[in-house]
Amino acid sequence: MEIRTIFDACHFSPEKMQKINLFATTELFFDVYCLEPGQKQKVHTHEKSSKVYVVLEGHASFHVAGETEDVGPGQAVLAEAGKPHGVENTRQERLVLLVAIAPPPSHG
Amino acid sequence: MEIRTIFDACHFSPEKMQKINLFATTELFFDVYCLEPGQKQKVHTHEKSSKVYVVLEGHASFHVAGETEDVGPGQAVLAEAGKPHGVENTRQERLVLLVAIAPPPSHG
Repeated sequence: MEIRTIFDACHFSPEKMQKINLFATTELFFDVYCLEPGQKQKVHTHEKSSKVYVVLEGHASFHVAGETEDVGPGQAVLAEAGKPHGVENTRQERLVLLVAIAPPPSHG
Repeated sequence: MEIRTIFDACHFSPEKMQKINLFATTELFFDVYCLEPGQKQKVHTHEKSSKVYVVLEGHASFHVAGETEDVGPGQAVLAEAGKPHGVENTRQERLVLLVAIAPPPSHG
């Protein structure tokens, strides 16, 4: 059985946000993103893939379709296919996100 | 922006496992499952959809493709398309699971 311990998989880099894949199938990617203070995923768009972010630790500033919201632990955010989205760690603490994306995009 | 607070959405029933949808798009469903002690999701198969479970609270006994494993908080399990899978709360505590499934299956 394929089992992952999320915080064991998590690692940080002073250079940039770390994106760690937990599971990859034909139908979806399931990742953990690890962001030091000040790191971000730039606003981008997947025309045919929807993405859900879940904040596990820390706080995230999400941008989806022109809106910005501060989101904390235990909260989930949807970036539907075709909507520009990004996330930034604006706090002085680490940020850990679970991310499901389906279907797997051909880039990023 | 579509934001959900996972534990606010969560509710339990003495009758059966509660499956609460957080987000539904053309590409994926993102749910929370809430199981009282003894409750379960019977073993079933989605021929064309992959599913990832994440244990948020409690412990789960997962069945995937004939294997059984006990999985705890912060762990994730993959049930790939075509593999029989199910989950049971065998402990004397509540179980809360996050569940991503893509693409949305035509049943259950």
